[in-house]
Amino acid sequence: MMYSQRILNTPSSFIRNILKVTSAEDVISFAGGLPNPISFPINALQETINKAIEAHGPKMFQYSTTEGYLPLRQYIADKYNNNFGLTIEPEDILITTGSQQALEMISQVLINKGEGIVVEEPGYLGALQAFSLTEPTFYPVELSEEGLNVEQLAQTLQNNPTIKFIYTVPNFQNPTGTTYTAENREAIYEVVKNYDVVLIEDDPYGELRWNGEKLPYIGAGRLENSVLLGSFSKIVTPGFRIGYMITKNKELLSHVNTAKQATDLHTNIFSQIVIHEYLTNNDLITHISKITDLYHTQASAMLEAIEKYFPKTVKYTKPDGGMFIWVTLEEGLSALDLFHKAMEEKVAFVPGDPFYTNKSNVNTLRLNYTNSSPEIIEEGIKRLGKILYEVTAKELV
Amino acid sequence: MMYSQRILNTPSSFIRNILKVTSAEDVISFAGGLPNPISFPINALQETINKAIEAHGPKMFQYSTTEGYLPLRQYIADKYNNNFGLTIEPEDILITTGSQQALEMISQVLINKGEGIVVEEPGYLGALQAFSLTEPTFYPVELSEEGLNVEQLAQTLQNNPTIKFIYTVPNFQNPTGTTYTAENREAIYEVVKNYDVVLIEDDPYGELRWNGEKLPYIGAGRLENSVLLGSFSKIVTPGFRIGYMITKNKELLSHVNTAKQATDLHTNIFSQIVIHEYLTNNDLITHISKITDLYHTQASAMLEAIEKYFPKTVKYTKPDGGMFIWVTLEEGLSALDLFHKAMEEKVAFVPGDPFYTNKSNVNTLRLNYTNSSPEIIEEGIKRLGKILYEVTAKELV
Repeated sequence: MMYSQRILNTPSSFIRNILKVTSAEDVISFAGGLPNPISFPINALQETINKAIEAHGPKMFQYSTTEGYLPLRQYIADKYNNNFGLTIEPEDILITTGSQQALEMISQVLINKGEGIVVEEPGYLGALQAFSLTEPTFYPVELSEEGLNVEQLAQTLQNNPTIKFIYTVPNFQNPTGTTYTAENREAIYEVVKNYDVVLIEDDPYGELRWNGEKLPYIGAGRLENSVLLGSFSKIVTPGFRIGYMITKNKELLSHVNTAKQATDLHTNIFSQIVIHEYLTNNDLITHISKITDLYHTQASAMLEAIEKYFPKTVKYTKPDGGMFIWVTLEEGLSALDLFHKAMEEKVAFVPGDPFYTNKSNVNTLRLNYTNSSPEIIEEGIKRLGKILYEVTAKELV
Repeated sequence: MMYSQRILNTPSSFIRNILKVTSAEDVISFAGGLPNPISFPINALQETINKAIEAHGPKMFQYSTTEGYLPLRQYIADKYNNNFGLTIEPEDILITTGSQQALEMISQVLINKGEGIVVEEPGYLGALQAFSLTEPTFYPVELSEEGLNVEQLAQTLQNNPTIKFIYTVPNFQNPTGTTYTAENREAIYEVVKNYDVVLIEDDPYGELRWNGEKLPYIGAGRLENSVLLGSFSKIVTPGFRIGYMITKNKELLSHVNTAKQATDLHTNIFSQIVIHEYLTNNDLITHISKITDLYHTQASAMLEAIEKYFPKTVKYTKPDGGMFIWVTLEEGLSALDLFHKAMEEKVAFVPGDPFYTNKSNVNTLRLNYTNSSPEIIEEGIKRLGKILYEVTAKELV
């Protein structure tokens, strides 16, 4: 049996592959990207479900429309219009099976084999995987603490006319935790507006902010080919797999709708109705502030522990929200080697390698803090620090 | 903005596109393929949900594994082993977002642009759509009342070495309602076993049988590259989007797992757990017999009405189960023309055209009987019959 080139060229997820080792009972894991279960409003959802079944009956269990549940799309439109002064209509929104599905479908709709996609370096590995199915050429653009390297972005777009879209995670990026600055956003807009490319702003973490003010989107509301992606995974539940895509480009949305028909007909309608009823009958702002307070505490515990236990040569990001810290080791050290040593000491993280399109044995790694208590975080970072001091000492001999 | 060739070549669903017209209040619609809401055990599901939340808590709302909920996969394995004497293990099963998703992913994993897929003619249009995303060459093989034309299948496989898989719906096929005979299955097996191709047996309707005995699968349990697809959409609820793929070919399953990671990470875990708890705590056999009794009554009403109101020149299938009747009009008549005339009289059906890979203005059409009462069915068929007599008279002038 011969398989397709596209699947042979699609990496399976490093994170999902190591899940069995890293999720063992006695391992302190900073490897996953799971929301803390406190972010699931279980009692409220259960109550919502019972009321929704009484109110909606069979409609919750029948086949449904590909574009998604209209009241939920109306809710999403209103939310973005109120929060960001946009003018989104329900017709501009497609509900997807997690925002992951939108990534895969947009790539299917835009990319012919070999055509270009601009990605952040380092970038979300799930996106790299989703895009790989269409066998694109990746054009990585460096992500610094301010955001994308605009000069490199401009050059890349200038030199590569096959580029179809740019993929960004402007708020609390995965894997780095970086938020693009307002100036960086403006500069990106000034470059991108000159090209016939789609700008994707994937924003699953934007509401998980504990410091600073939310920033306007780069392209939404002003770029013709702007796409916003969102999700209820980080603020209500990932188990329901409810995400969405927003764009004013009707032709693009219509093609993605066709891809969605072909892929899974429509998104779970039971879960769409439940999410909508939950959102309209509960105080989401209070719920989200519970989550961000917790994540703030956990992030602070991790940053303090790093400060205390890591060699001073180690650099790391200090996020204002989201779920991740990005660590850069001394030049020449391999995070993958460190991963194996750390697993012996029962601590897990994700080495940087899978977040790059074409690099290995990098000296960067991702730490997640949302799923461990401050005490466990301190213990895990302490163990990592000990290994880092040993490794550094050896390297220096 | 230029779109990908694959999406430009993927038809959007005729059925979904006409849904707005056909679902108007005053239209008698035989166009859809919706289960009757009686097939949704709403009270039992609500009770199951409440118990499951108490028992499983946050696990129902968290991210989950790509392969799917292990107890559900164990349940499916046991069911097939008990009913068909197979030896399926949970490791042979991937839970998918409806069995539709399995179609799309198998094609992604196997087909390079231009490679071959054997499809039934006429065949399930959702499958044609899903496969189109990989830009295959379709090799249609005629479906008669006995099943696939085996001689044509043999010739097709012989002459086209790029063929990667064969797609079949052996029980109560969509759109024809046809069930492959035992002899036809055996003959297909004897041909297919000589080729390095995957045989997909998609079986969403198999349990909806009110006449005759269930037949063994064609390839399951004996072909190395056998794939079975199944779904809970027709026996529990389509709104949850829970389907599955079964194969003993571990490499194939592993590639599809990677495609699933890239596409939507995993299937809605809340719905998986609910379905599993429902299946293990309720009498599914009694529930299914309620559905089949109803569909039997509805199918009989439609067959009797056709006998009474249609011109004798019209041919039609007489299904032993499932959801559809396939009608063949006199040669030269266009079902699409008839569709427009019928819509004027407020009756809807699906003209045959979208069920073929390369034919238009065909004289065949699909009727669904599961969503109308016997009285409505009689009235709708009566209206159709009247138009058919008028059209036939005109044609003969």
